[in-house]
Amino acid sequence: MKGMVLVMDGMGDRPIKELNNQTPLQAAKTPNMDKMAERGITGIMDSIAPGVIPGSDTAHLSILGYDPYEVYTGRGPFEASGVGVEVIPGDIAFRCNFSTSDENGIITDRRAGRVREGTDKLVETLNTMKIEGYEDIQIIFKESTGHRAVLVLRGEGLSGKVSDADPKVEGNKPKEVVPLDDTPEAQKTADILNKVVPKTYEMIKDHPVNLERIENGEPPANIVIPRGAGAVPSVPSINEKYGVNSACIAETGLIMGIGRFAGMDIIEMEDVTGGVDTNLYNIRDTILDQVKNSDHDFFLINIDGADEAGHDGDTQAKVDFLEKVDEIVMSELLKLEDVYIFLTADHCTPISVLNHSGDPVPILINGPEVRVDDVTEYHEYATAKGGLCRIRGADVMNIMIDLMGYGHKFGA
Amino acid sequence: MKGMVLVMDGMGDRPIKELNNQTPLQAAKTPNMDKMAERGITGIMDSIAPGVIPGSDTAHLSILGYDPYEVYTGRGPFEASGVGVEVIPGDIAFRCNFSTSDENGIITDRRAGRVREGTDKLVETLNTMKIEGYEDIQIIFKESTGHRAVLVLRGEGLSGKVSDADPKVEGNKPKEVVPLDDTPEAQKTADILNKVVPKTYEMIKDHPVNLERIENGEPPANIVIPRGAGAVPSVPSINEKYGVNSACIAETGLIMGIGRFAGMDIIEMEDVTGGVDTNLYNIRDTILDQVKNSDHDFFLINIDGADEAGHDGDTQAKVDFLEKVDEIVMSELLKLEDVYIFLTADHCTPISVLNHSGDPVPILINGPEVRVDDVTEYHEYATAKGGLCRIRGADVMNIMIDLMGYGHKFGA
Repeated sequence: MKGMVLVMDGMGDRPIKELNNQTPLQAAKTPNMDKMAERGITGIMDSIAPGVIPGSDTAHLSILGYDPYEVYTGRGPFEASGVGVEVIPGDIAFRCNFSTSDENGIITDRRAGRVREGTDKLVETLNTMKIEGYEDIQIIFKESTGHRAVLVLRGEGLSGKVSDADPKVEGNKPKEVVPLDDTPEAQKTADILNKVVPKTYEMIKDHPVNLERIENGEPPANIVIPRGAGAVPSVPSINEKYGVNSACIAETGLIMGIGRFAGMDIIEMEDVTGGVDTNLYNIRDTILDQVKNSDHDFFLINIDGADEAGHDGDTQAKVDFLEKVDEIVMSELLKLEDVYIFLTADHCTPISVLNHSGDPVPILINGPEVRVDDVTEYHEYATAKGGLCRIRGADVMNIMIDLMGYGHKFGA
Repeated sequence: MKGMVLVMDGMGDRPIKELNNQTPLQAAKTPNMDKMAERGITGIMDSIAPGVIPGSDTAHLSILGYDPYEVYTGRGPFEASGVGVEVIPGDIAFRCNFSTSDENGIITDRRAGRVREGTDKLVETLNTMKIEGYEDIQIIFKESTGHRAVLVLRGEGLSGKVSDADPKVEGNKPKEVVPLDDTPEAQKTADILNKVVPKTYEMIKDHPVNLERIENGEPPANIVIPRGAGAVPSVPSINEKYGVNSACIAETGLIMGIGRFAGMDIIEMEDVTGGVDTNLYNIRDTILDQVKNSDHDFFLINIDGADEAGHDGDTQAKVDFLEKVDEIVMSELLKLEDVYIFLTADHCTPISVLNHSGDPVPILINGPEVRVDDVTEYHEYATAKGGLCRIRGADVMNIMIDLMGYGHKFGA
């Protein structure tokens, strides 16, 4: 038996007046999802706990069986993993901005004019950095989209308990990084950071990329400002923990980062945007190919468009996207045999909130041995009456592994 | 008010094709259980947590209000308690096999030809054992069924963190026991074990029981091989914890062991087998006698037959047994007044799995002050729509004690 958890990012919602007090999922015509509800067992799920507002990252961690309160040490490690840095336990990772500093050290643009190109070349230079007195510490930069980047410190005796260098408001110098506890590790890490930040300025202020930007009248990306420190936790991979051979099929770096953190194989897709304009045919074909032709037996799949529509407050876009997913993707998944399919969301992104909320999300399970309930529609209201009642994200992997037949009895 | 938790071991199941996709409990004619559902409040329960596959032991611990992840230190302590050793906190207990060793120390039969008789006499001899240098350590053997036995080490400075002596595969010597952490306690315990194992051979190789076995061409039960070490945890009894006077009515050593661990009085029954052929009249009469005529006010009752049928994959036997329980036992329990009855299972033993699964089990509560819901049948599907929704084993005692009126307000 194979298994997949298909997460429709941000799919859940609240009643919307213009939809006659229906949710987008309720209003959308989704005959294939409804068919799956009819054939399966349904319920509602709190990714973390009732009312707790999950991030996509913490929700996915929880759904994969990790306690986010334990492993989510900060955004740094997951951002770093998301942009492809192979982080290892003990690494200290930071989110960074390329910013613009004047010669007095004042940050004049926190996003360096939203620089879009050349940061990879700046990173090449920055990655030769060594800090005097800390030559044993490896300093790894990696560019992300736009002005974003990550920084990873690797070596002995470091700590994630340090403050941000980001001054938040332009017109200020970078903040002095201070230790957030009184360990020598935090002191050491703060000390390194306070040397790294000015050093980035020294190393890239006259870099050809920046000289060209200045010539074009653009603010140079001449300093890197870290924030969101976190120590990379040591966790067992999904494969070790559950005895599966797992793969992650996702559109965004954030979710790929979670997959990488969990030790899953990352399946790359072309032409996917993470928005409502993504290529759902490619996503569908990737899923089908993986399920039918690969050795992977467990899949985490994330489709991101509904979340984008929610953040944008675009009701019609959310309805349309869910209908497209139903028509293009679910119509084919419906035909798979010998696969346990969990269809759910990581969190709600209500149109009215323009952000995530703590409402539960719908969930259904299809597969040969589930206790089929009498729910025949797939949406927030209908599934609340289903046979799963109300479960949590932390339950998902246990239920999946039990159904797949990979479970181990605890006791006699 | 009195209260009883009646656990139908392994009763829950999954839909079965030959039963027209019903579960055995759903297919079985159980008018008395249905009547109780109609009169009561119903729901589904995860003994430990959704998807977690419980043993009967860990499930019962959880239902009695103990956290199995905390108190279940290994099978040894519960096996020992189950065969009647009055273990005390700090004891280190092991499951053992009587095995056959040749004169070179090679294990030629791990189960000593599945020896059935005489192990009680071997244990008498073994219980005189003293280990040089560890004279203060009490060494207690106790025979169980067949080739099985337990070993308990009692004394200061011992640890349950030691490896198994069991070589698992015949043709090998017993394994050297090693400490599993670097405490002096684990070192000491391993050292003792490594002296106990060869000593069992010395003490019983020429025992009359074994000489007779050899004469009959049977492999002698001439060595004892321990495994599954666990330290007996220190826990409050059910009576201390909840202010009840409790009794355990069970068929099997495993559940009696849990009852003994929880400080319950153990009510012995005659003619009960733990199988589908058990004497349900005796079980019923014991329950009725205890409820009506004893000072006990709280009962844990376990009836084991449905679990056996599940492990055997015998659908009809499971259906028939549940019908017999309904007819013989539930018909009378139905008439009891002033008793809160919780009817549930410890776990599912689905016919298709031939073992336990992580699916939730049905639960109902009968008694004067429950909020009666509109569920009128007692099975996995119907009760999922009940007024209890989905609860956990850890909730059972709190709900029971509250209903019995023994609860204490937490706060003001």
